[in-house]
Formats: sequence, C-alpha cells, structure tokens
Amino acid sequence: LCVGTELLSGQINTHQGYLSTALAGAGLPLTREASLPDHRQEISGTVRDALKRSDAVLLCGGLGPTFDDITREAVADALGRGLRYRPALYTRIKRKFSRFRLPVPEENKRQAFVIDGAEVLHNSAGSAPGQLIVLRAGRGRTQLIALMPGPYAEMSPMFQNQVLPRLKSAYAKDRETAHLCVRLSGVPESVADEKLAFLTDRPEPGRSFTILSSGGQVDFHTVVTAATKAKARAELKRVRSLIYGAVGDSVFGEGAQTLEAAVGAVLLQRRLTLAVAESCTGGMLGQRLTATAGSSAYFLGGVIAYSNTLKRRLLDVPAATLSQSGAVSAACARQMAQGARRRCGADIGLAVTGIAGPGGGSKAKPVGLVFLALADKSGSRALRLRLSGAREVVRSRAVGAALNWLLRRLGKG
Amino acid sequence: LCVGTELLSGQINTHQGYLSTALAGAGLPLTREASLPDHRQEISGTVRDALKRSDAVLLCGGLGPTFDDITREAVADALGRGLRYRPALYTRIKRKFSRFRLPVPEENKRQAFVIDGAEVLHNSAGSAPGQLIVLRAGRGRTQLIALMPGPYAEMSPMFQNQVLPRLKSAYAKDRETAHLCVRLSGVPESVADEKLAFLTDRPEPGRSFTILSSGGQVDFHTVVTAATKAKARAELKRVRSLIYGAVGDSVFGEGAQTLEAAVGAVLLQRRLTLAVAESCTGGMLGQRLTATAGSSAYFLGGVIAYSNTLKRRLLDVPAATLSQSGAVSAACARQMAQGARRRCGADIGLAVTGIAGPGGGSKAKPVGLVFLALADKSGSRALRLRLSGAREVVRSRAVGAALNWLLRRLGKG
Repeated sequence: LCVGTELLSGQINTHQGYLSTALAGAGLPLTREASLPDHRQEISGTVRDALKRSDAVLLCGGLGPTFDDITREAVADALGRGLRYRPALYTRIKRKFSRFRLPVPEENKRQAFVIDGAEVLHNSAGSAPGQLIVLRAGRGRTQLIALMPGPYAEMSPMFQNQVLPRLKSAYAKDRETAHLCVRLSGVPESVADEKLAFLTDRPEPGRSFTILSSGGQVDFHTVVTAATKAKARAELKRVRSLIYGAVGDSVFGEGAQTLEAAVGAVLLQRRLTLAVAESCTGGMLGQRLTATAGSSAYFLGGVIAYSNTLKRRLLDVPAATLSQSGAVSAACARQMAQGARRRCGADIGLAVTGIAGPGGGSKAKPVGLVFLALADKSGSRALRLRLSGAREVVRSRAVGAALNWLLRRLGKG
Repeated sequence: LCVGTELLSGQINTHQGYLSTALAGAGLPLTREASLPDHRQEISGTVRDALKRSDAVLLCGGLGPTFDDITREAVADALGRGLRYRPALYTRIKRKFSRFRLPVPEENKRQAFVIDGAEVLHNSAGSAPGQLIVLRAGRGRTQLIALMPGPYAEMSPMFQNQVLPRLKSAYAKDRETAHLCVRLSGVPESVADEKLAFLTDRPEPGRSFTILSSGGQVDFHTVVTAATKAKARAELKRVRSLIYGAVGDSVFGEGAQTLEAAVGAVLLQRRLTLAVAESCTGGMLGQRLTATAGSSAYFLGGVIAYSNTLKRRLLDVPAATLSQSGAVSAACARQMAQGARRRCGADIGLAVTGIAGPGGGSKAKPVGLVFLALADKSGSRALRLRLSGAREVVRSRAVGAALNWLLRRLGKG
C-alpha cells in the first residue's frame, strides 16, 4: 500500500516496480498494490481488507512529521491498538538533526509514536523510523505488517535489510524459485500465445507464466517454484525446452538481452560491420543499435537522410530513382542501403524509408508504408511493410522490424 | 484499476502518472489506484468495491486476445451481466490484420465479446476495442465504467478522446477548470521547485500544482478550479504571470509542446535549416528532432559518426584532431558540427560527442563527459558538459542539453 496523495496527482510510483521485483525474486508474489490518499479511514479500511486476503501487508509513506502523515494512526485503528510515545526514540531522532546542526521541529515528536506491540525499524537514511507488527492469526499462521517511510532512499534499505529477511523466514522457508524470460521477435503476441497455449492454458502446479509485448517484441516469463533450488532449476530446464520446441524459431535472446544486443552478438561473432541509412526513423535505428555498450565493435554509424537532397548527396541515390519511384520505394531503400554500405565502408548496409505520418500519405503510398533494405557484398534486397499506429509507434515498429529482419538474415547467411 | 500480473512482477506502472495528471487537469480527482493480477475473481471483487466508493471506475489492461486477458469477463461478473459476441466487431478486427497481410489468430475472437449494454470504444492504435458502461445509480446519479487496453499507446488516445469527455460531462459540469503546463529546460527540478515554493507551499484554495521531471526537462502543472470558465481562466492568467516572474528564463514552451518542437518553431520562423553530427548519441538527437511531424521543413538530416573513421570520412574531421585532442574534445565537436553543416548544406550544424559509458572512461575523460558544438555562418562554438547517470540517461541528457542550448542560442541570434 503506497500512501500519499501525490501518487494520485501525477507523481510516478517507483516503489511498485522495486518491491514487486524484489519480492518475486524471493519467491514471494505480490498479489496486489494500491495507492491511497493521506486519509486515515481510507488507509485503515484498506489495511483491514488486505489482512483478510494476504499474509503480509507492506505500507510505504505517511510516516513523516507533518499533519498529513497519518499511516501510524491508521494502522493502529485497523488493528484496534493504541499508539505510545517513546521518549528514547525521540532522543534518537533529535540526535540525527543535531548531527546536521538543524533545529528539531516540534512536529517531529509525532515520529516517536509507536503502535502497541510493534517493533521499531531503524531508518539509516532519514528521520522516520519504520515499524513491524507480527500478528498470530491462529493455527500457526503468522501475519506481518510493515510500515516503511515514503522516500525511496529510506524505504529501499529498510525493506532489503530489515523487512525482506523477516518475510522470507516467515513465508518462503520451504520454497525456492527459478525465473526465465524468453524473448521473441518477428511474431505477433497472439500467435506466440497460441503456440504456447499448451503450457499456459492449464499450468501445472509450481509453474506460472506471463506474456508481454512491446515495440514489436514479445517476452515470455516463466517462474517455477519448488522445494529446493536444484529442483526448481531442473524443472525450469524442462519448461525451457518445451518453450524452444514451440517457438524456438522466433527466440532472439533470454533475460535482459535486447534485440539490438542479439544483432550485435551475431555481427561480432561473424566479424561483420554495419552502417545504417535512415529516412523516416531519423536516427532511431542508430540510437537503438548504440544503446548496447560496446556497439562500436560492429556499428560504424551512418547517414540520417531525412531530406531527398541528402539521399542524393550523402547516399548517392540517383535523382531518377527519387523522381520515378519516389523516396518511399523499394528501389530507393536498396540504393540507400548500398550507399550507406559503400560510403561508410561497412560489410552490411541497412536502410529504412517510409511514411510515419500523420501527414504525407496518399492512396498509393499511405501512412505506415515502410521499406527496409539490406545491402551486402552479394547485392541488396528490400522488404515492404505496412505498419499501423501513431507516428512514434510506426517509427519504433519500423526499427524493430529492421533489427528482426537483419537478425534472421544473418542467421541464414 | 491497472490489470496485469506484470505490474506486480517488476514492470513500471506508467498509467497511474498519466491518468492522475489528466484527471486532475479536468478537475476530477483520482481517489485510489490499484494494480491487480490477471485473476477474474480479484478483478470483479475490486470493481464491486470501487463502485461502492467512487463515481467512475477506469480499468486499463486485460483486453488482449490471450488466455490471461480476462477484464471483460471480470467486469461482466461484477455487474451480473452477460457478454455477447459481436460478429461485426470481429470483422473490423480481422480487417486490421488483413491490412498487414497477417492471418488472424482464432484467439482474437475473444476481443469481439462485449458486455451487455456496453458501448464499444474505438481503438485507433491496436486491435483491442474498449468498452464503456453507464450505470443509473438512482437519485439522478450516474456511474461510469471504462475498459481500456493496457498498452500506453492504445490507452492514452482512447482515454483522451472518448473517455475523458464523458467523465467531464458527467461529473465536472458545475466546476470549471483551467490547466496550464509550463515546460522548463536547463534547470534542475529542485531549483525550479525552490523558486516556485511561494506558490506550492500553501496553495490558495482552487489552485493545485504538480512538478514533474524527466529527460532533463521540468514540467510545472497548474490546475485552477472556479465556478465559471471565465473565472478559472482569469485566475490562471494571474498564476501564469507569477510563474513566469519566478522561472521565465527557463521556460521553453507550454502545454504539450516538446523541446524539439520549440526548436523547430524557431528554425521555421527564422527560415533556418539544421543538420546534426552524432557520436555517442548514435542517432538519438536526429530521432528527437524528427519526432515532430513536419520537421522536414527545417531538419535535413545528418551523420551518425560513431566510429572515428566516419568522423573523418563523412565529416572531414582531420586525423590530427583525433590523434591530438581525441574524439571526445571541443575541437572534434566543432569540426563535426562544421562538417555536418557543410556536407548537408545546412544553415546550422549541431554536434554531440562524448563518453556515455559504462566503459571507455578515463581519469582525464570520465564517463559522462560530453561536448556539444554549434556551427553557423559566423563560425563554431563548443560546450563542455559533465553528465551523470547510466548510459541511456547520459545520452538522453546530452540530447536534451543540445536542444536546450540550440534554443537559447537561436533566441540570442
């Protein structure tokens, strides 16, 4: 539960990503997240609901000294417990301020109130102490409630060092997990999904799957849970071979490997260099290729030929091509790729030209029409695409398609 | 309600920031956000709870074609309504696929099921249609439920064009708001925040403020609420002049105007053309400049000179500069800018060279060292930057700084 009216008026919630990743890695699935305003009844009601559903409830925010910080009070309400002032805690808070030669605002006394029965969690990076409450819920079941400060720099070390170990020992003692992300390109999400349905439709116990798609790329996540690390790994290996059996043709990498890094790895291995010629993408293809550290080993650079003049001047596209076929044509794309290859002295030239929109389209050449071309020592070839979406979507899909095409062609070469 | 197990296993929730800002701008406060797993009962239960508390419930995600997309079913459950297959809707979905010469997976049929009594919302950027349900809750009270797709590029236009107008007319009729986003560049968020504290610290009734920062740019949002549109506008005008009094020097635009669009507007007005020369940014500067539709009127293109060979071959940087000063130097940046200007036949050449990291740094030339250069008919000048952050952060800050510098120089020219 993230507490703070600012989270509901435009501030980005960074805690959710951090906590969910850290919890998943420990085999402790996050089952729900909510952002709440600084409102005592809302918070206490939500804590009560959450305790009905979940083993543990983590709260971030609302532990500050000001009037609108009321997480302490709200959680005490939810549990029907009191709050007690702890003079020793206030002394510690005052000591922090004096270290920075700051006067202690009277308001900070509020931070020294602790819920009855709660343990105090040390805050290594700020003044607000955290609190941890253990509830014995009967039949040997334990519930944990953690109150952590809102600022990321204060919350994350408190979570990592003081809260996560307690969660693990309470709930993940007999459970180990293994995680795999298989990345696909050149295949629509729904097609990948259909091919993997035999795994996902009625998943076996201990296996869970998520399929995600963005920028023309599909990620298939598997989490396996087992009694020991070795068993989890062995089971993941079995699942992995099933995944490759179904969609192996479209896999370009695993884990955090990007499509551009996969392209780079093949170029590096085959000792080939690449240059680009970009029209409608205006540099986006180069940007993606150079997002990988170390890309200078295979990527030389290229030409952003946004204007037709530059297609002629910097890429030697003949004026006749531009006047007869137009800048958005297979012929122009091929000459751009050849021009990039020759001018840059690269083994491979990769070109993109198209109509990203919203304007500039016609019946014969509508918005979303994009030509890719590849040139190498054996010649050049072009690929025609019809992409949908707004300007930036068309551009990023064109770049994704170009990288995917290059990767597949390199695989065949 | 953001639906998707991925939001609970590490993916960043970008919808919350977008929707809360847009809603605040319309005088419609967001009172709660929750992220839910792809779990039918969890979603339907949460929708039921939310309808007890709120006028309107917005759902994002879970409208895709795959097994784990179950928002449609869950909302139907919550309302005790059925789902009906709409053949005409499926025909429309199939038409989208056929345009791209793709076979339609059988699974996409799921997207043609509509909750009884729901209105279909058109998806301009993808295959999943949205749905809108109006509930008559008695005593003239109306409740709205909107089902929108998960991908940001599909959700945001659907929200802006089809959902927000309905929310406004249902709940914000007797309240008029005026919204202003003032965009700043070249100033850190904390400095802007301090300068604007006189407004934000104890805001007067009817005024609310949010400050957001990304990519070296700060957005300061003001929402003014009043009884009439005229009063809201007059009050906003007063606030606007206070903002300009405090940070006017750093303002580059208002509303949705981007930094690159602001640069473009000045270039267009002064009938100047621009070419770029990029090393460490690998095309990102060109990509940003061409993100603005119509940029071909002032942006010609340029050279991605990622390798030193291309700095010589395509930009005429003398070998002596590279061997004596190195590729990351003021001298090299200036020659790159001049080369881009001359080779592309542009009025202005803008160059970036630097060390984006994580490798490649040294004591004399650390990671984050970036040189910008501008060349025009009167000569060339360079600017040295020391940027912090990971590789992509350094690169995007370099691009932001380049655009900002160009804009300030053009203002002086």
